[in-house]
Amino acid sequence: MAKISVLGAGSWGTALAWLLHNNGHDVMIWSVMKDEVEALDRDHENKKKLPGVILPQDMILTSDLEAACSGQDLLVTAVASPYIRSTAHSMKPYVKKGQLIVNVAKGIEEHSLKTLSDIIEEEIPQAVVTVLSGPSHAEEVGKGIPTTIVAGAKKEEVAEYIQELFMSPVFRVYTSPDVLGIEIGAALKNVIALAAGIADGLGYGDNTKAALITRGIAEISRLAEAMGARSETLFGLSGIGDLVVTCSSRHSRNRKAGYLIGQGRTMKQAMDEVSMIVEGVYSAKAGLELSEKYKIDMPITLAVNEVLFNNKPAAEAVNDLMLRDKKMEIEADLWEK
Amino acid sequence: MAKISVLGAGSWGTALAWLLHNNGHDVMIWSVMKDEVEALDRDHENKKKLPGVILPQDMILTSDLEAACSGQDLLVTAVASPYIRSTAHSMKPYVKKGQLIVNVAKGIEEHSLKTLSDIIEEEIPQAVVTVLSGPSHAEEVGKGIPTTIVAGAKKEEVAEYIQELFMSPVFRVYTSPDVLGIEIGAALKNVIALAAGIADGLGYGDNTKAALITRGIAEISRLAEAMGARSETLFGLSGIGDLVVTCSSRHSRNRKAGYLIGQGRTMKQAMDEVSMIVEGVYSAKAGLELSEKYKIDMPITLAVNEVLFNNKPAAEAVNDLMLRDKKMEIEADLWEK
Repeated sequence: MAKISVLGAGSWGTALAWLLHNNGHDVMIWSVMKDEVEALDRDHENKKKLPGVILPQDMILTSDLEAACSGQDLLVTAVASPYIRSTAHSMKPYVKKGQLIVNVAKGIEEHSLKTLSDIIEEEIPQAVVTVLSGPSHAEEVGKGIPTTIVAGAKKEEVAEYIQELFMSPVFRVYTSPDVLGIEIGAALKNVIALAAGIADGLGYGDNTKAALITRGIAEISRLAEAMGARSETLFGLSGIGDLVVTCSSRHSRNRKAGYLIGQGRTMKQAMDEVSMIVEGVYSAKAGLELSEKYKIDMPITLAVNEVLFNNKPAAEAVNDLMLRDKKMEIEADLWEK
Repeated sequence: MAKISVLGAGSWGTALAWLLHNNGHDVMIWSVMKDEVEALDRDHENKKKLPGVILPQDMILTSDLEAACSGQDLLVTAVASPYIRSTAHSMKPYVKKGQLIVNVAKGIEEHSLKTLSDIIEEEIPQAVVTVLSGPSHAEEVGKGIPTTIVAGAKKEEVAEYIQELFMSPVFRVYTSPDVLGIEIGAALKNVIALAAGIADGLGYGDNTKAALITRGIAEISRLAEAMGARSETLFGLSGIGDLVVTCSSRHSRNRKAGYLIGQGRTMKQAMDEVSMIVEGVYSAKAGLELSEKYKIDMPITLAVNEVLFNNKPAAEAVNDLMLRDKKMEIEADLWEK
């Protein structure tokens, strides 16, 4: 049994707290929002963000960050990506040397172009930061539906410890040393999910969506390799797996926002209507900046940016993608002469 | 303008004939079934298999194989995989030396473990055989929905000629030299689609399906590499792309058959209910034989075989997959020591 705090009481943080409790650990949930903590303490259920998942009576809910960060074997950072830096900054004074942290938020910071684990390491240099990511809608994890995920850490024994804590008969955890690849996949797949949503909103079908998914992960994989990650990771759970679940799911906010944009809403209207944070909108800018920095051709990411921020009509963006120069699918020159 | 015969009047053959005609080519459709030819000639529509797609009045429909194989720039083989060998065998006497053929059927022959282009080359040694494959439900291609696909040939100029013939503003064709990888992906993704259908039928969610898709393509990719294909191809349109469209689609027979099995039907009942050829059932056996021949661990393909042919309860098969040994996601040893 380990002592674990989950920082952030959104749907994913709540689902993971529930899972870790079921695995026999001693779990505490922290949220910066006092009313959220009070509601959880009263209802033992996150009625707004994860209805139907009942937390145990004895789980400690707190808005005291010092209490949440002290004396724990593991801290799970599960706040939305725009709040990772400020949360990590606030955590720093309470975090002991060598503290193990697993980040489950997904995103890349605009302008600095840092991954979220980079940011946490920068803000809390005394911690050991790892990641956990994969195709795992909170709503399904909270129902015990079979799910797979990948735990990334620089050291094998650390990754195996995370695997040990989270693994259950319905939650299969793989390990990987490619932390960077996992985080790039997790962040940038949301941009492709927006594109897939836009195609759905325009009334296109499964063929178009599959094209966007396949060519989308190909462009993210090219970028990831240029950044020093392994392309296999992008074709794994935190890349294609997460992208598939995001693009096909009823639960995805990124897909839904894209769908609304495809139907004619502006980016602002779509974000208001979804009413939760649409990570892909932030990641789209970061993806474009990365493609420029590393000089990688990322036509789908570029098209999404044009639609989101430059008022390009969505149908025109899709048409432009279809009519680019004729291309080879793989770069290797294996032709018979 | 090229002269093209499409051999096989199923949904895919009909959709491609329609597409090629719209691209300005002179297109003929052949079917072995006289009543099918008569109905097409009368209705100019394949009312049973591709309703709503209207063929032009002047398109020639024939059941005369010699007429279909003579004097054409391209022959498109679009019969179901179990009939490829017999059809190619019948075509042989009428096919000129150097005749270009593009195979669009998907499958691997049981026992011989040959791909369909291998079989066509064996039966018609005087022909130049190429392939065309990707995430392309006929129903959507026939409505002009944006679609991508890959043309595989050993020689670059041949692949580019196929690209030229098929490419349109809504049908984007990539080229590739990896014919083997394209065919392995096309055939074996149907096994994973069956598994995804079974998970849906058991009432599991998007997480489970994404896990099966991701780990499914990983095992197919390992096999493909051992057979001499490129793993990138399996992560491209004819691998992951086609798998995504098959697993998520309303149109897929493989997914539907799997769904019925997940709901408790036997393999035989499910095939009867779907009433079209379920390629994945044939490919499952071939996949298992290939995994044994090349000594590649393919747990999902094995599980599908157990459910289809050894009466293993589907829920038990999924549970076994979740509870295997803890694994690393990628094989590379990049751990910090």
